[in-house]
Amino acid sequence: MEKIEHIGIAVNDLEAANERFGKLLGQPHYKIEEVPSEGVRTSFFKTGESKIELLEATDVDGPIAKFLSKNGEGMHHIAFAVDDIEKEMKRLKAEGFILINEKPKKGADNKLVAFLHPKSSNGVLIELCQEIAE
Amino acid sequence: MEKIEHIGIAVNDLEAANERFGKLLGQPHYKIEEVPSEGVRTSFFKTGESKIELLEATDVDGPIAKFLSKNGEGMHHIAFAVDDIEKEMKRLKAEGFILINEKPKKGADNKLVAFLHPKSSNGVLIELCQEIAE
Repeated sequence: MEKIEHIGIAVNDLEAANERFGKLLGQPHYKIEEVPSEGVRTSFFKTGESKIELLEATDVDGPIAKFLSKNGEGMHHIAFAVDDIEKEMKRLKAEGFILINEKPKKGADNKLVAFLHPKSSNGVLIELCQEIAE
Repeated sequence: MEKIEHIGIAVNDLEAANERFGKLLGQPHYKIEEVPSEGVRTSFFKTGESKIELLEATDVDGPIAKFLSKNGEGMHHIAFAVDDIEKEMKRLKAEGFILINEKPKKGADNKLVAFLHPKSSNGVLIELCQEIAE
């Protein structure tokens, strides 16, 4: 685990939330990206070496739509940057963490990603992400 | 807002959670600190330029005890480092954010802190923190 890559926040309305977080962070989001496979539209803000990722649902059956209907808006996950995602997944599995994905998949922001189940990490959904080499 | 100073995570049992997060992050917590005024015992882990703060309730009427009984374990707040907390509080109030504290107070880890209400930041409890000069 190198650093916090980003914090994911589920929001109802991406445009309104972009305006709010732009004011909070003192600078606007620098990109919007849709990830159809996850049923989300995302925006990104820089803060130090990390990012804030806002997530709006685009699919009523997707994970963000379900999270929002159960919990309302709020923090959804913490993503950590890793150098070698497969090695890190193997290490964490051996340490007793429950992997949601058995293999890394393509996520937003040019990353390979995998998630750890909140029940093995004190209620926190953890994402591992590795930058995809150009 | 300079960077993510830390992410606060509410846990039921600090010792068990320290072991879990030590395995997750690949390194142990580097300190434990009790904050009686907040009714919490905290531990800290380093990750890049940021920290993970685990929070265990020590007062059944305190904010962490209430959070845990309502939501269970999980992400509790995001803290951003600021250079001048009073200036930042004034700026954010003018931008329409709701301050929980009208004045900064002494928090854990040698910081002056103030919180923004989640209802003005998409369900996210935001902490501002400024390092107290030695």
